[in-house]
Amino acid sequence: SYETLTEKGTSWTVVTPIIFSYKVTETHGLLDPCNATLLTGHAHEPQTSADTLRIPSKPIKRFVVVDQEVYRIYGSQITKYFEVNNVTCKILALPTTEENKSMEMALKILEELNSFSIDRRAEPVIAIGGGVCLDIVGLAASLYRRRTPYIRVPTTLLSYIDASVGAKTGVNFANCKNKLGSYIPPVATYLDLSFIKTIPRRHISNGLAEMLKMALMKHKELFELLEKHGQHLLDSKFQSDSSVFSVSSQSASRSTRLAIVTMLEELAPNLWEDDLNRLVDFGHVISPALEMRVLPSLLHGEAVNIDMAYMVYVSRESGQLTEDEKNRIISCMVGLELPVWHQACTMELIQSSLQDRLKHSGGLVRMPLPVGLGQAIFNNTSYEVLTSAYEKWC
Amino acid sequence: SYETLTEKGTSWTVVTPIIFSYKVTETHGLLDPCNATLLTGHAHEPQTSADTLRIPSKPIKRFVVVDQEVYRIYGSQITKYFEVNNVTCKILALPTTEENKSMEMALKILEELNSFSIDRRAEPVIAIGGGVCLDIVGLAASLYRRRTPYIRVPTTLLSYIDASVGAKTGVNFANCKNKLGSYIPPVATYLDLSFIKTIPRRHISNGLAEMLKMALMKHKELFELLEKHGQHLLDSKFQSDSSVFSVSSQSASRSTRLAIVTMLEELAPNLWEDDLNRLVDFGHVISPALEMRVLPSLLHGEAVNIDMAYMVYVSRESGQLTEDEKNRIISCMVGLELPVWHQACTMELIQSSLQDRLKHSGGLVRMPLPVGLGQAIFNNTSYEVLTSAYEKWC
Ligand SMILES: NC(=O)c1ccc[n+]([C@@H]2O[C@H](COP(=O)([O-])OP(=O)(O)OC[C@H]3O[C@@H](n4cnc5c(N)ncnc54)[C@H](O)[C@@H]3O)[C@@H](O)[C@H]2O)c1
Ligand SMILES: NC(=O)c1ccc[n+]([C@@H]2O[C@H](COP(=O)([O-])OP(=O)(O)OC[C@H]3O[C@@H](n4cnc5c(N)ncnc54)[C@H](O)[C@@H]3O)[C@@H](O)[C@H]2O)c1
Ligand SMILES: [Zn+2]
Ligand SMILES: [Zn+2]
Repeated sequence: SYETLTEKGTSWTVVTPIIFSYKVTETHGLLDPCNATLLTGHAHEPQTSADTLRIPSKPIKRFVVVDQEVYRIYGSQITKYFEVNNVTCKILALPTTEENKSMEMALKILEELNSFSIDRRAEPVIAIGGGVCLDIVGLAASLYRRRTPYIRVPTTLLSYIDASVGAKTGVNFANCKNKLGSYIPPVATYLDLSFIKTIPRRHISNGLAEMLKMALMKHKELFELLEKHGQHLLDSKFQSDSSVFSVSSQSASRSTRLAIVTMLEELAPNLWEDDLNRLVDFGHVISPALEMRVLPSLLHGEAVNIDMAYMVYVSRESGQLTEDEKNRIISCMVGLELPVWHQACTMELIQSSLQDRLKHSGGLVRMPLPVGLGQAIFNNTSYEVLTSAYEKWC
Repeated sequence: SYETLTEKGTSWTVVTPIIFSYKVTETHGLLDPCNATLLTGHAHEPQTSADTLRIPSKPIKRFVVVDQEVYRIYGSQITKYFEVNNVTCKILALPTTEENKSMEMALKILEELNSFSIDRRAEPVIAIGGGVCLDIVGLAASLYRRRTPYIRVPTTLLSYIDASVGAKTGVNFANCKNKLGSYIPPVATYLDLSFIKTIPRRHISNGLAEMLKMALMKHKELFELLEKHGQHLLDSKFQSDSSVFSVSSQSASRSTRLAIVTMLEELAPNLWEDDLNRLVDFGHVISPALEMRVLPSLLHGEAVNIDMAYMVYVSRESGQLTEDEKNRIISCMVGLELPVWHQACTMELIQSSLQDRLKHSGGLVRMPLPVGLGQAIFNNTSYEVLTSAYEKWC
């Protein structure tokens, strides 16, 4: 910090960095009791057996929040994992749905956490579930004692490739999507594709929308992969058949990895979203209002896809996409079984969502738009283009 | 971020800094309509009149939360300040007392903030009040849209020298002091000593306790200032008599400035309290539990002083203070009209508060202790010293 003198006294300016550090780790058999990842994977230096011997009496404690539906399917495996590893734990199964994504739910978790009592520095809270569960638990942990480490275990495709990577936590408030939250990354995220096998087909499509977002913004190969193997990915639920060594059987690991790497490239240098030019905002300009307006009829990724489909028309109208490219994108969306239009997405909704981004000066809207397949720019789009694109889209 | 390959897949490690930057600025006549500090003092480059002319139509908006008692005394001045400066504003006067320092109060503020609607990047929320008000509003702002800038205007001596400087926000939860919160600094803090003139005498003492903390930990001159001029500071309520140019009339600005500078030295490099060896924790080891147990009978600084008084005995017992030094410190406390003992501060309470700090190995407690006047060390104190100090203290 440095001092300056003004006529009215002293002024101190403080400039200080906080270093965030976290891991995103692929694994297999996360719930196999022999896999130590869930218990010690976050540690900078894995605990040696010598350490463990020196403090033989200290039991490991973990506070675990699990989505209720995930608990129904994986509950006995989860319970057994901690039992076999001698962990004193509290497993809290909650109905973490979009409608319940609220501060009340976060406070409920906090009450349980507080009465269970953990060593705030050494015993990270564990969240196992979809994006809703990870977001609520992340918020609760980031508030508890001003910051308690937490671990994310995404169990839906959407959270596997998206919520897994960044720092955002949040809950809905006053009918607005993620209006309250924080930017506190988990200490670690553990990725195990085998959770995806029990995901309903519609929720696979849901996750594919966020993958398509990254493909359109910055990765042509990923786009082509989704275009060619989308149906296979939906059918196989991202489970690779180890007997076949074909391109399509590798598409699950290849596509998820590309989605994660492109996402990391965008999120890591802009963890707190201070830079307003964010490619990851594609599909997230109109969709938050749309998603909340029709809740629960559209899933997050579905609303995102409707937003993207409209924006593809905006790009086409402003000459950044050829007719052929536009058609390929829309066909790919249809192939991924995603909605490309919704009646609740009116011009009024679009306008009010863009209000925030409207420059005061010339009425131009700055937002990411696809250019060809796998590239993007931040364009200042005029109101005329927005309306003519809307007419063609409908 | 960098990739590593493990036998079970890829692991990405993200290491990324977030730069926090904020100002702590002394001023006079903060509520004088001609003083622009409150409206533009946080801006990196002050808005020039040219800028203002270019966008003549854009009205300034501010959301202001004021402690109810402060509003009773300064409400008309505050209202007039914004009126004269043509600011569209919502002034919310709330009973921000320690008993009301809760998430419910934060959510109430958030509802009002959400329906008033501000430009999240350009229109910082303003908090005017004591530490309770600043802490609650800081938490609400840090949650709103994952981070909305806010400004602190401390109106009590305690918040002037303490809450003004750091990044901590918080509310009480499950009967635990500041159990929920965040580490998000305000964009600016404005210091105007004239607010202190309406503070009840007991609350001046309250603030003096936190000043004494910094004096004992690291500044002998500050200690001697409080020892010599404590009564004068209590009598004059930190208002300097401009007609006299004596040491005692300058003691208000000198002592507050020293308290702030020493506090900044400690807090700025450790904004998120990652380093556990914190001198600012002196007086804050036992006091949180004591304060909550007897609420509302002890003020924050009073509980802190009782904690410090006990620790002075611990220091004496472990040979870090002479009998004379111990006596001078206790006399100074009495001179500042602060309690040096409380019946609710039992050995059981002390023990349970120290539990967190107990090393697993040898039963030693690591905490800051004064060494002489104006210096400190982190000592590993044995249980025997703690109990014998307790007996002498009682
Ligand atoms: N933090 C971030 O960066 C981020 C990023 C993207 C999305 N999100 C948020 O994530 C949420 C959407 O996440 P989501 O799509 O995972 O929704 P979700 O958490 O509601 O999960 C979808 C459904 O799948 C069920 N489920 C979860 N795992 C399962 C499994 N393995 N087998 C069977 N069923 C399972 C759940 O019970 C739920 O009914 C939104 O609220 C969105 O705002 C956050
Ligand atoms: N964030 C931090 O770093 C930090 C640091 C220290 C303390 N705190 C917190 O601050 C709180 C204590 O702050 P406090 O001592 O300011 O208490 P407070 O906010 O309760 O204020 C004390 C009393 O003074 C009244 N008051 C405020 N300004 C006044 C004025 N100018 N004239 C007359 N009356 C006025 C208030 O209405 C209240 O009754 C505690 O909750 C503590 O945890 C936070
Ligand atoms: Zn999304
Ligand atoms: Zn304090």
